[in-house]
Amino acid sequence: MKQENLMDKLISLCKNRGFIFPSSEEYGGTAATYDYGPLGVGLKNNIKNQWLKEMIQLHDNIVGLDSAILMNPKVWEASGHIQNFTDPLVECKECHKRFRQDELKKGIERCPECGGELTQPRQFNLMFKTRLGSTEETGRDLYLRPETAQGIYVDFKRVQQSMRLKIPFGVAQVGKAFRNEISPGDFTYRTVEFEQMEMQWFCFPKEADDWFEYWKKERLKWYLNLGVKKNNLRFREHGKDELAHYAKKAVDIEYKFPFGWKEIEGIHNRGDWDLSRHSKFSGKDFKYSDDKYKEPFFPYVIETSGGVDRATLVFLTDAYEEVSGGRTTTTKSIKETETVLKLNHKLCPIKIAVLPLSKKTSLQSLAHAIEKKLKPNYMLQYDETGSIGKRYRRQDEIGTPYCVTVDFKSLEDKKVTVRDRDTMKQERVEIDGLENYFSKKY
Amino acid sequence: MKQENLMDKLISLCKNRGFIFPSSEEYGGTAATYDYGPLGVGLKNNIKNQWLKEMIQLHDNIVGLDSAILMNPKVWEASGHIQNFTDPLVECKECHKRFRQDELKKGIERCPECGGELTQPRQFNLMFKTRLGSTEETGRDLYLRPETAQGIYVDFKRVQQSMRLKIPFGVAQVGKAFRNEISPGDFTYRTVEFEQMEMQWFCFPKEADDWFEYWKKERLKWYLNLGVKKNNLRFREHGKDELAHYAKKAVDIEYKFPFGWKEIEGIHNRGDWDLSRHSKFSGKDFKYSDDKYKEPFFPYVIETSGGVDRATLVFLTDAYEEVSGGRTTTTKSIKETETVLKLNHKLCPIKIAVLPLSKKTSLQSLAHAIEKKLKPNYMLQYDETGSIGKRYRRQDEIGTPYCVTVDFKSLEDKKVTVRDRDTMKQERVEIDGLENYFSKKY
Repeated sequence: MKQENLMDKLISLCKNRGFIFPSSEEYGGTAATYDYGPLGVGLKNNIKNQWLKEMIQLHDNIVGLDSAILMNPKVWEASGHIQNFTDPLVECKECHKRFRQDELKKGIERCPECGGELTQPRQFNLMFKTRLGSTEETGRDLYLRPETAQGIYVDFKRVQQSMRLKIPFGVAQVGKAFRNEISPGDFTYRTVEFEQMEMQWFCFPKEADDWFEYWKKERLKWYLNLGVKKNNLRFREHGKDELAHYAKKAVDIEYKFPFGWKEIEGIHNRGDWDLSRHSKFSGKDFKYSDDKYKEPFFPYVIETSGGVDRATLVFLTDAYEEVSGGRTTTTKSIKETETVLKLNHKLCPIKIAVLPLSKKTSLQSLAHAIEKKLKPNYMLQYDETGSIGKRYRRQDEIGTPYCVTVDFKSLEDKKVTVRDRDTMKQERVEIDGLENYFSKKY
Repeated sequence: MKQENLMDKLISLCKNRGFIFPSSEEYGGTAATYDYGPLGVGLKNNIKNQWLKEMIQLHDNIVGLDSAILMNPKVWEASGHIQNFTDPLVECKECHKRFRQDELKKGIERCPECGGELTQPRQFNLMFKTRLGSTEETGRDLYLRPETAQGIYVDFKRVQQSMRLKIPFGVAQVGKAFRNEISPGDFTYRTVEFEQMEMQWFCFPKEADDWFEYWKKERLKWYLNLGVKKNNLRFREHGKDELAHYAKKAVDIEYKFPFGWKEIEGIHNRGDWDLSRHSKFSGKDFKYSDDKYKEPFFPYVIETSGGVDRATLVFLTDAYEEVSGGRTTTTKSIKETETVLKLNHKLCPIKIAVLPLSKKTSLQSLAHAIEKKLKPNYMLQYDETGSIGKRYRRQDEIGTPYCVTVDFKSLEDKKVTVRDRDTMKQERVEIDGLENYFSKKY
């Protein structure tokens, strides 16, 4: 399958099967915002919950936070975003299109669209601005946060003290952020509204290098454990000239998308940049001390910064497979291409499909009884329309690992057929044993 | 306990124990935005997950959605928010303070602050505006959504078709919304940034009244089932003169806060207002038809619109109890007031606390082994500092239902003491049987 075709097919699947749609499409859309449909939000929530579980529940010494999107604007002075968070833009003197300078080929002086001459680069701040207050005169400028991280730094002391934490410890947060991107694109990869999952690890300065290595490995492992193919993942270390203003060291986890290797998560050694800046700009104490280390000091921060939308796109892309011929049809001679979304069991939005073979009342009521029994523990889909082959195909397309088919024999032997998405094996399972059967699968 | 004191105590508990802090406090705050600390985000996520489970997983025919905050601005013309979503404000001619007209006592003509004369009311739009695009000239105005509902209406056809839904069906969404409130206040009750949980139920017009009654009862039941006291909840039906521009009928679920009876969720019969308006403003088809009902028509919408922050405040307020004397102290003669947060087991942020009686290595390693065993299934807290009475009290304050104490006898009899938050009963439980023991409790 050609890589450009893969992207088109994935976008089409996402739209037709309720994963992801362009936002406000009836009104001509909004530049690069997307809505997650019923299956998309199921997948995305599973990803977020897996991340939160991994970070907060299973890891020692990491706690959660959910800070506000609208923060005091001085936060962004301290963080350097008002001064540094700018993109150099060049404009075509002919067609007036604007381009990010870093996306043009080096030394290019003419517009890639029309061949016109380009201006010198100009700075443009990526933060969205809005105004709080009842009228223009009494109002005050606010920014939509461009990253969740600063909420964690500003609350550092309050979280540390209220939870009685000792370093090294981490604070993890999932939440929306906004950037007025000049060139959004590649589906949900680069959008102006997006969701981050960031963890800030506060540690002794002398241990920062070791923790950087630790978190690099941990974060890669997370994607691998949730089924992303090893060959599609790699590290890329930032050169000294690439480092952001806050970073001492940075490495990207990259994924091999159909549109190329792209960053999906960054691990950064931010040193004491953020805490010391907030200390300076607010005049408040952001140093750490405890019974053992009485001399107050600024901890170093190792940040793991991932995107929920990017992770969702990674899992969707990596799971997408096409199989040609007779996978779900009973007539093996039909050679259509069939799509299977091989999502990890923990991530798939629908865990089990319940399919009565026909619309006969006796089958329907048995199928509904099974649905009712499994529902409290599993996200289900009940489907009664179309041939059974067609229904298997629908479930394969959305990545449902197991289909439970209720047929006429079920009425007699009290068993159903359970079909496995990946092996396509079918086995007869006792209806009374289904809860136990699936508790071992999930 | 006096009601005004209760609010002060609750706010103080929230701040000191990691539930809720004012946002950007080091910088003097932001008007009425709040950060959820480690325990607050745990509680809030549990509430959201309970709502999503109730709506999407357990109910028939409801699917999820997560639409963008930044939508095409024409959406807000169609919805009536640009025209109607305004608050009449009056200004004091002396001190220039502004007040919502509907919050002033009827007929009042002089400023409640300084006694000055008030102006005639002026309209003020509650939506936050921002600007998308690379420069002022080429940019375009956008609004931060003031409600999540419109995302559901705009995506109505796409969700219905991609999920092959037949009415009656519902679409449920949790997400942030923003309103430039004139008079935010009462802690997290009225804030400019807040999270909604809204469900839109599309049905036949002639069945709308029945569904309205159904959803009224369902939504009240949800709060009751999660432990809110019956006497603190009531319905309040809107009079004809109170109805919003879109509503045919509306009822509030109100909660008896320390600051009075206040709306926590609204159930609205919105008729075909939204779908017909989007049809008109976009020129696209928003009607419904299927094999059975071939003549296209606009379904009616019954909306259940609740606030995540308000629900969180309800559960916290309702769970807050003070008990005087010797509840957790071993010396019964000490008569201090102790706080217990009697949160429902499904909502409490920490499910189990593991407490080694002393810092002796042998006890610590046994306690850590227990922690490790229970961690994959439960959100835990490990606490080794302070007397056991003090540690029980800490857990009571944050609503942890069970404390597992590892003492010296545990090393011999392989049993631990499990203490119940509500009954304060203690029982010895086999360490090997703990997983089974708690699987019955949760």
